Amino acid sequence: MASAAPIDFYFDFSSPYGYFASHRIDGIAAKHGREVAWRPYLLGVVFQTTGQKPLVEQPLRGDYARHDFERCARFYGIPFAFPARFPVMSLAPARAFYWLVDDDPAAAKALAKAIYDAYFNGGADISKPETVIALAEPLGVDGEALAAALGDDAVKARLKAETEQAIARGAFGSPFVIVDGEPFWGADRLDQVDLWLEGGGW
Amino acid sequence: MASAAPIDFYFDFSSPYGYFASHRIDGIAAKHGREVAWRPYLLGVVFQTTGQKPLVEQPLRGDYARHDFERCARFYGIPFAFPARFPVMSLAPARAFYWLVDDDPAAAKALAKAIYDAYFNGGADISKPETVIALAEPLGVDGEALAAALGDDAVKARLKAETEQAIARGAFGSPFVIVDGEPFWGADRLDQVDLWLEGGGW
Repeated sequence: MASAAPIDFYFDFSSPYGYFASHRIDGIAAKHGREVAWRPYLLGVVFQTTGQKPLVEQPLRGDYARHDFERCARFYGIPFAFPARFPVMSLAPARAFYWLVDDDPAAAKALAKAIYDAYFNGGADISKPETVIALAEPLGVDGEALAAALGDDAVKARLKAETEQAIARGAFGSPFVIVDGEPFWGADRLDQVDLWLEGGGW
Repeated sequence: MASAAPIDFYFDFSSPYGYFASHRIDGIAAKHGREVAWRPYLLGVVFQTTGQKPLVEQPLRGDYARHDFERCARFYGIPFAFPARFPVMSLAPARAFYWLVDDDPAAAKALAKAIYDAYFNGGADISKPETVIALAEPLGVDGEALAAALGDDAVKARLKAETEQAIARGAFGSPFVIVDGEPFWGADRLDQVDLWLEGGGW
Protein backbone atom coordinates (compact mmCIF):
# COMPACT_ATOMS: atom_id res chain seq x y z
CA MET A 1 0.00 0.00 0.00
CA ALA A 2 1.38 3.40 -0.96
CA SER A 3 1.75 5.67 2.02
CA ALA A 4 -0.06 9.01 1.91
CA ALA A 5 1.79 12.17 0.89
CA PRO A 6 3.07 14.42 3.68
CA ILE A 7 0.90 17.19 5.08
CA ASP A 8 2.20 20.58 3.95
CA PHE A 9 2.84 23.04 6.78
CA TYR A 10 3.42 26.56 5.44
CA PHE A 11 4.64 29.15 7.91
CA ASP A 12 6.67 32.32 8.30
CA PHE A 13 9.40 32.31 10.95
CA SER A 14 8.15 35.71 12.16
CA SER A 15 4.60 34.45 12.83
CA PRO A 16 3.50 33.71 16.41
CA TYR A 17 0.58 31.58 15.21
CA GLY A 18 3.00 29.67 13.00
CA TYR A 19 5.14 29.09 16.08
CA PHE A 20 2.17 27.74 18.04
CA ALA A 21 1.33 25.39 15.16
CA SER A 22 4.97 24.26 14.99
CA HIS A 23 4.58 22.85 18.49
CA ARG A 24 1.46 20.86 17.58
CA ILE A 25 1.42 19.86 13.92
CA ASP A 26 3.81 16.90 14.02
CA GLY A 27 1.98 15.35 16.97
CA ILE A 28 -1.40 15.69 15.29
CA ALA A 29 -0.07 14.15 12.07
CA ALA A 30 1.63 11.32 13.95
CA LYS A 31 -1.69 10.34 15.60
CA HIS A 32 -2.89 9.49 12.11
CA GLY A 33 0.36 7.95 10.86
CA ARG A 34 1.21 10.93 8.70
CA GLU A 35 4.38 12.95 8.10
CA VAL A 36 4.62 16.74 7.87
CA ALA A 37 6.60 18.67 5.25
CA TRP A 38 7.59 21.97 6.85
CA ARG A 39 7.60 24.78 4.29
CA PRO A 40 8.73 28.22 5.45
CA TYR A 41 7.72 31.06 3.15
CA LEU A 42 7.57 34.84 3.19
CA LEU A 43 4.35 36.48 4.32
CA GLY A 44 5.70 39.83 3.14
CA VAL A 45 5.49 38.57 -0.43
CA VAL A 46 2.00 37.17 0.23
CA PHE A 47 0.83 40.53 1.54
CA GLN A 48 1.88 42.16 -1.73
CA THR A 49 -0.67 39.85 -3.38
CA THR A 50 -3.49 40.16 -0.86
CA GLY A 51 -3.03 43.82 0.04
CA GLN A 52 -3.01 42.78 3.71
CA LYS A 53 -0.87 44.55 6.29
CA PRO A 54 0.81 42.74 9.18
CA LEU A 55 -1.74 42.14 11.94
CA VAL A 56 0.03 44.20 14.58
CA GLU A 57 0.09 47.26 12.29
CA GLN A 58 -3.70 47.30 11.90
CA PRO A 59 -5.87 49.60 14.05
CA LEU A 60 -7.73 47.78 16.86
CA ARG A 61 -6.66 44.38 15.51
CA GLY A 62 -3.02 45.04 16.37
CA ASP A 63 -3.60 45.58 20.09
CA TYR A 64 -5.91 42.60 20.22
CA ALA A 65 -3.40 40.40 18.41
CA ARG A 66 -0.65 41.09 20.94
CA HIS A 67 -3.05 40.11 23.71
CA ASP A 68 -4.25 37.04 21.80
CA PHE A 69 -0.68 35.78 21.20
CA GLU A 70 -0.03 35.64 24.94
CA ARG A 71 -3.39 34.10 25.77
CA CYS A 72 -3.16 31.46 23.02
CA ALA A 73 0.29 30.48 24.30
CA ARG A 74 -1.20 29.88 27.75
CA PHE A 75 -4.25 28.10 26.25
CA TYR A 76 -2.03 25.68 24.31
CA GLY A 77 0.56 25.44 27.11
CA ILE A 78 3.42 26.59 24.86
CA PRO A 79 6.32 28.65 26.27
CA PHE A 80 6.19 32.15 24.79
CA ALA A 81 7.89 35.50 25.36
CA PHE A 82 6.88 38.19 22.89
CA PRO A 83 10.04 39.33 21.04
CA ALA A 84 11.27 42.88 21.60
CA ARG A 85 11.70 43.21 17.85
CA PHE A 86 8.60 42.15 15.92
CA PRO A 87 8.03 41.34 13.16
CA VAL A 88 11.44 40.61 11.70
CA MET A 89 12.63 39.68 8.21
CA SER A 90 12.69 35.90 7.99
CA LEU A 91 14.85 35.58 4.88
CA ALA A 92 17.92 34.09 6.60
CA PRO A 93 16.02 31.38 8.54
CA ALA A 94 13.98 30.37 5.49
CA ARG A 95 17.02 30.23 3.20
CA ALA A 96 18.93 28.15 5.75
CA PHE A 97 16.02 25.72 5.90
CA TYR A 98 15.83 25.18 2.13
CA TRP A 99 19.59 24.89 1.81
CA LEU A 100 19.45 21.99 4.29
CA VAL A 101 16.18 20.25 3.55
CA ASP A 102 16.97 18.18 0.45
CA ASP A 103 20.13 16.61 1.88
CA ASP A 104 19.06 16.36 5.50
CA PRO A 105 15.34 16.91 6.13
CA ALA A 106 15.66 15.96 9.82
CA ALA A 107 18.33 18.62 10.39
CA ALA A 108 16.26 21.20 8.51
CA LYS A 109 13.23 20.54 10.72
CA ALA A 110 15.38 20.56 13.88
CA LEU A 111 16.84 23.91 12.79
CA ALA A 112 13.38 25.32 12.10
CA LYS A 113 12.26 24.34 15.60
CA ALA A 114 15.41 25.83 17.13
CA ILE A 115 14.89 29.09 15.23
CA TYR A 116 11.23 29.37 16.25
CA ASP A 117 12.01 28.67 19.89
CA ALA A 118 14.96 31.09 19.89
CA TYR A 119 12.72 33.85 18.53
CA PHE A 120 9.50 33.31 20.44
CA ASN A 121 10.95 32.03 23.68
CA GLY A 122 14.52 33.26 23.71
CA GLY A 123 14.67 36.87 22.54
CA ALA A 124 17.06 36.09 19.67
CA ASP A 125 17.07 38.27 16.55
CA ILE A 126 16.56 35.53 13.97
CA SER A 127 16.75 37.97 11.06
CA LYS A 128 20.56 38.00 11.48
CA PRO A 129 22.57 35.36 9.59
CA GLU A 130 24.92 34.97 12.57
CA THR A 131 21.96 34.02 14.80
CA VAL A 132 20.82 31.36 12.36
CA ILE A 133 24.37 30.01 12.02
CA ALA A 134 24.82 29.88 15.80
CA LEU A 135 21.59 27.85 16.06
CA ALA A 136 22.59 25.52 13.21
CA GLU A 137 26.11 24.62 14.35
CA PRO A 138 25.05 22.60 17.44
CA LEU A 139 22.93 20.50 15.04
CA GLY A 140 26.07 19.47 13.15
CA VAL A 141 25.70 21.99 10.33
CA ASP A 142 28.87 23.49 8.84
CA GLY A 143 28.65 27.16 9.81
CA GLU A 144 30.94 28.47 7.10
CA ALA A 145 29.09 26.59 4.39
CA LEU A 146 25.77 27.89 5.73
CA ALA A 147 27.10 31.47 5.81
CA ALA A 148 28.02 31.15 2.14
CA ALA A 149 24.68 29.51 1.29
CA LEU A 150 22.68 32.40 2.76
CA GLY A 151 24.06 34.67 0.03
CA ASP A 152 23.92 32.06 -2.74
CA ASP A 153 21.76 32.87 -5.75
CA ALA A 154 20.44 29.33 -6.08
CA VAL A 155 19.29 29.32 -2.44
CA LYS A 156 17.63 32.71 -2.89
CA ALA A 157 15.88 31.43 -5.99
CA ARG A 158 14.70 28.31 -4.16
CA LEU A 159 12.98 30.35 -1.43
CA LYS A 160 11.43 32.62 -4.05
CA ALA A 161 10.09 29.61 -5.94
CA GLU A 162 8.76 27.98 -2.77
CA THR A 163 6.94 31.19 -1.82
CA GLU A 164 5.47 31.55 -5.31
CA GLN A 165 4.34 27.93 -5.27
CA ALA A 166 2.71 28.41 -1.86
CA ILE A 167 0.75 31.40 -3.14
CA ALA A 168 -0.20 29.48 -6.29
CA ARG A 169 -1.62 26.78 -4.01
CA GLY A 170 -3.71 29.40 -2.20
CA ALA A 171 -1.63 29.89 0.94
CA PHE A 172 -1.94 33.40 2.34
CA GLY A 173 -1.21 33.19 6.07
CA SER A 174 0.79 31.46 8.75
CA PRO A 175 0.23 28.71 9.62
CA PHE A 176 -1.39 27.41 6.45
CA VAL A 177 -1.79 23.64 6.32
CA ILE A 178 -2.76 21.59 3.26
CA VAL A 179 -3.95 18.03 3.84
CA ASP A 180 -4.52 16.03 0.66
CA GLY A 181 -5.50 19.23 -1.16
CA GLU A 182 -7.69 20.55 1.67
CA PRO A 183 -6.49 23.98 2.97
CA PHE A 184 -6.63 25.09 6.62
CA TRP A 185 -5.56 28.56 7.74
CA GLY A 186 -4.66 29.37 11.32
CA ALA A 187 -3.38 27.79 14.51
CA ASP A 188 -7.04 27.65 15.52
CA ARG A 189 -7.85 25.27 12.66
CA LEU A 190 -5.58 22.45 13.87
CA ASP A 191 -8.50 20.74 15.62
CA GLN A 192 -10.21 20.63 12.24
CA VAL A 193 -7.00 19.29 10.67
CA ASP A 194 -7.04 16.56 13.30
CA LEU A 195 -10.65 15.63 12.53
CA TRP A 196 -9.99 15.82 8.77
CA LEU A 197 -7.14 13.33 9.14
CA GLU A 198 -9.58 10.87 10.71
CA GLY A 199 -11.18 10.78 7.28
CA GLY A 200 -14.79 10.34 6.32
CA GLY A 201 -14.99 13.66 4.50
CA TRP A 202 -17.15 15.46 7.06
CA MET B 1 -24.41 37.65 46.31
CA ALA B 2 -24.46 39.92 43.26
CA SER B 3 -24.67 38.01 40.01
CA ALA B 4 -21.98 38.60 37.39
CA ALA B 5 -22.64 40.98 34.51
CA PRO B 6 -23.76 39.45 31.21
CA ILE B 7 -21.23 38.41 28.61
CA ASP B 8 -21.29 40.83 25.66
CA PHE B 9 -21.77 39.14 22.29
CA TYR B 10 -21.08 41.58 19.43
CA PHE B 11 -22.00 40.43 15.94
CA ASP B 12 -23.11 41.58 12.51
CA PHE B 13 -26.20 39.93 11.03
CA SER B 14 -24.32 39.50 7.75
CA SER B 15 -21.44 37.52 9.36
CA PRO B 16 -21.31 33.72 8.95
CA TYR B 17 -18.92 33.37 11.88
CA GLY B 18 -21.29 35.49 13.98
CA TYR B 19 -24.07 33.10 12.97
CA PHE B 20 -22.03 30.08 14.08
CA ALA B 21 -21.33 31.77 17.42
CA SER B 22 -25.03 32.59 17.81
CA HIS B 23 -25.73 28.86 17.91
CA ARG B 24 -23.17 28.24 20.67
CA ILE B 25 -22.70 31.28 22.90
CA ASP B 26 -25.79 30.95 25.11
CA GLY B 27 -25.06 27.30 25.83
CA ILE B 28 -21.46 28.01 26.77
CA ALA B 29 -22.51 30.84 29.07
CA ALA B 30 -25.27 28.76 30.66
CA LYS B 31 -22.73 26.05 31.61
CA HIS B 32 -21.15 28.65 33.87
CA GLY B 33 -24.38 30.23 35.10
CA ARG B 34 -23.93 33.34 32.96
CA GLU B 35 -26.24 35.35 30.72
CA VAL B 36 -25.39 36.76 27.29
CA ALA B 37 -26.22 40.27 26.09
CA TRP B 38 -26.55 40.06 22.31
CA ARG B 39 -25.29 43.25 20.66
CA PRO B 40 -25.62 43.53 16.88
CA TYR B 41 -23.45 46.19 15.30
CA LEU B 42 -22.27 47.26 11.87
CA LEU B 43 -18.99 45.83 10.59
CA GLY B 44 -19.12 48.29 7.69
CA VAL B 45 -18.57 51.11 10.18
CA VAL B 46 -15.81 49.13 11.89
CA PHE B 47 -14.02 48.61 8.58
CA GLN B 48 -13.93 52.39 8.06
CA THR B 49 -11.85 52.49 11.26
CA THR B 50 -9.60 49.50 10.60
CA GLY B 51 -9.19 49.92 6.85
CA GLN B 52 -10.18 46.26 6.48
CA LYS B 53 -12.23 45.02 3.53
CA PRO B 54 -14.88 42.30 3.82
CA LEU B 55 -13.17 38.90 3.87
CA VAL B 56 -14.78 37.59 0.69
CA GLU B 57 -13.55 40.62 -1.28
CA GLN B 58 -9.89 39.94 -0.45
CA PRO B 59 -7.63 38.06 -2.90
CA LEU B 60 -6.92 34.42 -1.88
CA ARG B 61 -8.61 34.96 1.50
CA GLY B 62 -12.01 35.36 -0.13
CA ASP B 63 -12.04 31.98 -1.84
CA TYR B 64 -10.72 30.32 1.28
CA ALA B 65 -13.34 32.01 3.46
CA ARG B 66 -16.24 30.66 1.39
CA HIS B 67 -14.79 27.17 1.76
CA ASP B 68 -14.13 27.68 5.48
CA PHE B 69 -17.72 28.82 6.15
CA GLU B 70 -19.09 25.55 4.81
CA ARG B 71 -16.51 23.40 6.57
CA CYS B 72 -16.94 25.18 9.92
CA ALA B 73 -20.70 24.67 9.69
CA ARG B 74 -20.11 20.93 9.30
CA PHE B 75 -17.47 20.93 12.04
CA TYR B 76 -19.85 22.58 14.51
CA GLY B 77 -22.88 20.67 13.22
CA ILE B 78 -24.82 23.85 12.44
CA PRO B 79 -27.26 24.00 9.49
CA PHE B 80 -25.89 26.35 6.84
CA ALA B 81 -26.68 27.31 3.26
CA PHE B 82 -24.51 30.10 1.88
CA PRO B 83 -26.81 32.99 0.90
CA ALA B 84 -27.08 33.89 -2.78
CA ARG B 85 -26.69 37.54 -1.82
CA PHE B 86 -23.69 38.12 0.44
CA PRO B 87 -22.84 40.24 2.28
CA VAL B 88 -25.97 42.30 2.81
CA MET B 89 -26.65 45.53 4.69
CA SER B 90 -27.71 44.61 8.19
CA LEU B 91 -29.25 47.95 9.19
CA ALA B 92 -32.87 46.78 9.33
CA PRO B 93 -32.20 43.67 11.47
CA ALA B 94 -29.97 45.59 13.89
CA ARG B 95 -32.43 48.48 14.24
CA ALA B 96 -35.30 46.05 14.85
CA PHE B 97 -33.26 44.39 17.59
CA TYR B 98 -32.50 47.61 19.47
CA TRP B 99 -36.07 48.86 19.13
CA LEU B 100 -37.22 45.69 20.91
CA VAL B 101 -34.48 44.94 23.39
CA ASP B 102 -35.20 47.37 26.24
CA ASP B 103 -38.86 46.45 26.57
CA ASP B 104 -38.63 42.77 25.71
CA PRO B 105 -35.09 41.33 25.67
CA ALA B 106 -36.36 37.78 25.16
CA ALA B 107 -38.27 38.78 22.03
CA ALA B 108 -35.25 40.71 20.74
CA LYS B 109 -33.01 37.66 21.13
CA ALA B 110 -35.63 35.37 19.56
CA LEU B 111 -35.87 37.78 16.62
CA ALA B 112 -32.09 37.87 16.25
CA LYS B 113 -31.98 34.07 16.11
CA ALA B 114 -34.84 33.99 13.59
CA ILE B 115 -33.07 36.55 11.38
CA TYR B 116 -29.74 34.71 11.48
CA ASP B 117 -31.39 31.38 10.66
CA ALA B 118 -33.49 32.92 7.87
CA TYR B 119 -30.35 34.39 6.28
CA PHE B 120 -27.85 31.58 6.72
CA ASN B 121 -30.19 28.65 6.42
CA GLY B 122 -33.23 29.99 4.62
CA GLY B 123 -32.13 32.16 1.72
CA ALA B 124 -34.04 35.21 3.00
CA ASP B 125 -32.84 38.71 2.10
CA ILE B 126 -32.63 40.10 5.63
CA SER B 127 -31.57 43.53 4.41
CA LYS B 128 -35.21 44.21 3.50
CA PRO B 129 -37.47 45.72 6.18
CA GLU B 130 -40.36 43.51 5.03
CA THR B 131 -38.29 40.38 5.67
CA VAL B 132 -37.48 41.50 9.20
CA ILE B 133 -41.12 42.39 9.85
CA ALA B 134 -42.31 39.01 8.54
CA LEU B 135 -39.89 37.28 10.93
CA ALA B 136 -40.92 39.45 13.88
CA GLU B 137 -44.71 39.12 13.61
CA PRO B 138 -44.85 35.39 14.56
CA LEU B 139 -42.98 36.37 17.74
CA GLY B 140 -45.85 38.65 18.77
CA VAL B 141 -44.26 41.88 17.55
CA ASP B 142 -46.54 44.56 16.09
CA GLY B 143 -45.50 44.70 12.44
CA GLU B 144 -46.77 48.22 11.77
CA ALA B 145 -45.02 49.62 14.81
CA LEU B 146 -41.82 47.88 13.79
CA ALA B 147 -42.09 49.23 10.23
CA ALA B 148 -42.31 52.74 11.66
CA ALA B 149 -39.45 52.09 14.10
CA LEU B 150 -37.06 51.07 11.31
CA GLY B 151 -37.20 54.63 9.97
CA ASP B 152 -37.26 56.34 13.35
CA ASP B 153 -34.42 58.74 14.13
CA ALA B 154 -34.10 57.61 17.75
CA VAL B 155 -33.73 53.97 16.67
CA LYS B 156 -31.14 54.93 14.04
CA ALA B 157 -29.24 56.91 16.67
CA ARG B 158 -29.35 53.97 19.09
CA LEU B 159 -27.69 51.62 16.58
CA LYS B 160 -25.11 54.27 15.74
CA ALA B 161 -24.30 54.73 19.44
CA GLU B 162 -24.11 50.96 20.05
CA THR B 163 -21.71 50.57 17.12
CA GLU B 164 -19.55 53.46 18.32
CA GLN B 165 -19.47 52.02 21.83
CA ALA B 166 -18.47 48.60 20.50
CA ILE B 167 -15.55 50.13 18.59
CA ALA B 168 -14.57 52.17 21.65
CA ARG B 169 -14.43 48.89 23.59
CA GLY B 170 -12.08 47.45 20.96
CA ALA B 171 -14.53 45.30 18.98
CA PHE B 172 -13.54 44.97 15.32
CA GLY B 173 -15.00 41.71 14.06
CA SER B 174 -17.90 39.29 14.28
CA PRO B 175 -18.29 37.52 16.58
CA PHE B 176 -16.50 39.59 19.22
CA VAL B 177 -17.16 38.47 22.79
CA ILE B 178 -16.21 40.38 25.94
CA VAL B 179 -16.19 38.45 29.22
CA ASP B 180 -15.60 40.63 32.29
CA GLY B 181 -13.42 42.96 30.21
CA GLU B 182 -11.55 40.16 28.42
CA PRO B 183 -11.96 40.33 24.59
CA PHE B 184 -12.27 37.30 22.30
CA TRP B 185 -12.52 37.60 18.52
CA GLY B 186 -13.84 34.83 16.32
CA ALA B 187 -16.10 31.80 16.37
CA ASP B 188 -12.88 29.82 16.84
CA ARG B 189 -12.24 31.49 20.21
CA LEU B 190 -15.38 30.17 21.92
CA ASP B 191 -13.44 27.25 23.42
CA GLN B 192 -11.21 29.85 25.06
CA VAL B 193 -14.31 31.76 26.22
CA ASP B 194 -15.53 28.53 27.78
CA LEU B 195 -12.24 27.97 29.61
CA TRP B 196 -12.06 31.64 30.65
CA LEU B 197 -15.51 31.33 32.24
CA GLU B 198 -14.21 28.51 34.40
CA GLY B 199 -12.05 31.17 36.03
CA GLY B 200 -8.59 30.93 37.46
CA GLY B 201 -7.12 33.53 35.11
CA TRP B 202 -5.09 31.12 32.96
